Amino acid sequence: MASDKKFVEEITSMEEDFAQWYTDVVKKAELTGYTQVKGFMVIKPAGYAIWENIQAELDRRFKATGVENVYLPCLIPESLLQKEKDHVEGFAPEVAWVTYGGAQELEERMCVRPTSETLFSDFYAKDVHSYRDLPKVYNQWCSVLRWEKTTRPFLRSREFLWQEGHTVHASAEEAEARTIQMLNVYADFSEQFLAIPVVRGKKTDKEKFAGAVATYTIEALMHDGKALQCGTSHNFGDGFARAFEIQYVDKDNSPKYCHQTSWGMTTRMIGAIIMVHGDNSGLKLPPLVAPVQAMVIPIQMKKEGVLEKAGSVADTLVRAGIRARLDDSDKSPGWKFSESEMRGVPVRIEIGPKDIEKGQCVIVRRDTREKITVELEKVAEKVNEILDLIQKSMYEDAKKRMEAMTYSAVTKEEFKDLADHKPGFIKAMWCGSVACENEIKDALGGVTSRCMPFQQEKLADSCIWCGKPAKALVYWGKAY
Amino acid sequence: MASDKKFVEEITSMEEDFAQWYTDVVKKAELTGYTQVKGFMVIKPAGYAIWENIQAELDRRFKATGVENVYLPCLIPESLLQKEKDHVEGFAPEVAWVTYGGAQELEERMCVRPTSETLFSDFYAKDVHSYRDLPKVYNQWCSVLRWEKTTRPFLRSREFLWQEGHTVHASAEEAEARTIQMLNVYADFSEQFLAIPVVRGKKTDKEKFAGAVATYTIEALMHDGKALQCGTSHNFGDGFARAFEIQYVDKDNSPKYCHQTSWGMTTRMIGAIIMVHGDNSGLKLPPLVAPVQAMVIPIQMKKEGVLEKAGSVADTLVRAGIRARLDDSDKSPGWKFSESEMRGVPVRIEIGPKDIEKGQCVIVRRDTREKITVELEKVAEKVNEILDLIQKSMYEDAKKRMEAMTYSAVTKEEFKDLADHKPGFIKAMWCGSVACENEIKDALGGVTSRCMPFQQEKLADSCIWCGKPAKALVYWGKAY
Repeated sequence: MASDKKFVEEITSMEEDFAQWYTDVVKKAELTGYTQVKGFMVIKPAGYAIWENIQAELDRRFKATGVENVYLPCLIPESLLQKEKDHVEGFAPEVAWVTYGGAQELEERMCVRPTSETLFSDFYAKDVHSYRDLPKVYNQWCSVLRWEKTTRPFLRSREFLWQEGHTVHASAEEAEARTIQMLNVYADFSEQFLAIPVVRGKKTDKEKFAGAVATYTIEALMHDGKALQCGTSHNFGDGFARAFEIQYVDKDNSPKYCHQTSWGMTTRMIGAIIMVHGDNSGLKLPPLVAPVQAMVIPIQMKKEGVLEKAGSVADTLVRAGIRARLDDSDKSPGWKFSESEMRGVPVRIEIGPKDIEKGQCVIVRRDTREKITVELEKVAEKVNEILDLIQKSMYEDAKKRMEAMTYSAVTKEEFKDLADHKPGFIKAMWCGSVACENEIKDALGGVTSRCMPFQQEKLADSCIWCGKPAKALVYWGKAY
Repeated sequence: MASDKKFVEEITSMEEDFAQWYTDVVKKAELTGYTQVKGFMVIKPAGYAIWENIQAELDRRFKATGVENVYLPCLIPESLLQKEKDHVEGFAPEVAWVTYGGAQELEERMCVRPTSETLFSDFYAKDVHSYRDLPKVYNQWCSVLRWEKTTRPFLRSREFLWQEGHTVHASAEEAEARTIQMLNVYADFSEQFLAIPVVRGKKTDKEKFAGAVATYTIEALMHDGKALQCGTSHNFGDGFARAFEIQYVDKDNSPKYCHQTSWGMTTRMIGAIIMVHGDNSGLKLPPLVAPVQAMVIPIQMKKEGVLEKAGSVADTLVRAGIRARLDDSDKSPGWKFSESEMRGVPVRIEIGPKDIEKGQCVIVRRDTREKITVELEKVAEKVNEILDLIQKSMYEDAKKRMEAMTYSAVTKEEFKDLADHKPGFIKAMWCGSVACENEIKDALGGVTSRCMPFQQEKLADSCIWCGKPAKALVYWGKAY
């Protein structure tokens, strides 16, 4: 049992050091690994399988709204990146430059894509001619590079995986509607599939995407009270269309500029899953996204019939559509319990000689640790029921925590006090000026505007910082 | 009808100019598009949807053999690429080099991965310790860069999409078995899913992968008689393990070097589908890989009830698990027929007022152009039946053509004559020397050894070229 205990003891408790806890969980749950390539991560099978489930579900939801997948080049010539002024300012400082192809120096250097607005615009300029060609609602799954100085697995890495949707429309209204539609796809996906409650809102001008007219965001709250931007959707108006000459001939035969959007979600969501749901025993995966939903662990495995029965339980579950596995390795049951918890498997199923005698097994919930004894005949039905319950209850728990950690401030003193002492979201009114945002960030140790929520409230008439008339309610917080 | 005809007239016939035919089909079927990025392709929705079907099926077959997916960095430091001598010689001349990260020149330049043996080896060296850690059977789906001088969509492009499997094993026997196993996965996939018959065999030393002990390949024959290498599987022995110090402690407590394999299949397969199955009306997709399997085309669409009935036929098919679509655009039926043929949709379904009166519709096979009248009530059943037939018959047709275009040569004169006059595979005996391969390539306008097939035959005792004792039967041919 000493070694069983050690397995868990190796992770720092989240109360002691949240950042170290995160790093420990990522490592012990075998989500990522390392190579010599500094600042880049290896996503190991346990981590990549989570990403595959995210991909499959997001892709299904995208396609249900008419999205089609494409693939564009991974390199962008410098002149193309520079075509939209705000965009290049936002990204040029952090791109990786390719200067040689084989032994030959390139005439024009190219960056590895940090995002693909410029490429999609170049493509659409060639591909869109008439109103009949519109809209185009394209998406690509790929990796992008941003030359970050400090990196953390999933949260901030020089390379990450994502999807980037890029659409082109005939009218401003249609582009705006698509921008909001995709934000809601992200929000519903986060809440329904990842059990992560989010705040839906609009970014302030300071925080919006380089080149966008408007950026919408979903923001989630991590266990430590820090916010994580989970997905963004941008409306570009006709800015890129003018820079790239993306015009179409309308029904009235006149040439018009197109309107564009883009929207993205990344492997960062794996970081969100860890930090929203995890605990001091490790990862805790919502059943819908869990690569393994049920781990069957035989007790006294060497006794006759045990391994066989455990295997048949696992088979029964698989046939019922549950992602179940049998742990028949030569480790002790205690070690297997810890490992299954560390990896966040939603339920483990214990079955030993006594259980078999009684025709039963024991289901243990990862989230509540509750033990439920069930007849072997009903195991699949019961596991499915419990997985549903876990999915719902993980969302409810996370939602309650987010609500409990969301504060309101009416006076500047309250605002400062909350920022200093209460990790979480702070709702407060704002005048609309970047100056206030900058001052708040400096004065309150990095507190930034997370978003102007769609659900506006009027807490006061004036800006929490400068006292001038308030324009909007803002969710403030420290963010990853 | 003039415009309907024009749609098809725009593609060159394959007998006239096969290369131009290929380019025309790729363009008219809207498989790829262009940006300013020279030598790189845009894969448009119709092309990418084919790739998605390839991915899903291959991935399923991989996982059935125990493969797990991972993701490794897209950049490789130069020192890492150089660790295995043969490997770097093979790839260094054609990689793209990143020399700057943001404004900062890198201390060591990095290439965008052309393939990831070195990265996987670096990773395995850190991750493998004991015999308990073995085997690791990992795969990644990603894009790679190779700085090609002349490019053609899908066939040769500076960037392409692929999967690369990289495995590490305790013994040489296990590595060899996995190498062969994955080659057979590729071969079965090509034949069963893409309806592309292949020859399975081993590459000669001259043609094997840089750094491999043995390379196995599947080779297919295109419509013009040229060969296309469709998938390769490499056994590295312990070469990379020695270069990267990948050792494990065996059960007897002694340190041993690991044995490795890698295997890949790429977007090139889309080129193979085009060139094996296509005809002068465009693309011809095997039903299993076709993104749209049945296109429902209403005739006299404006007559009351026609569009509605056509829509309900499409719905019926979708509910039966068929990837069906309704073409309700305002083009003429003739245009729609041509378009559906160009895009390779396996069956189109025509339905007009007269059909509706009779309670029937007309199914037209893309492969044989056969028209089959069926009762509306049986349409789903019949379409499924016909799709099965098409899948089988496309494979049989391709197989017959490959067999008809596979020749045997016993004398040098026969060999020369066939190479000059008969596009296709030539089976002939070989002594095993690179010198003969080089001479044959020079003398016969680019004829190379495609593989030593697993099914060996003894056509003669001596090498077709030098007359020395023969070591193996080789499939020879000109290749893409």
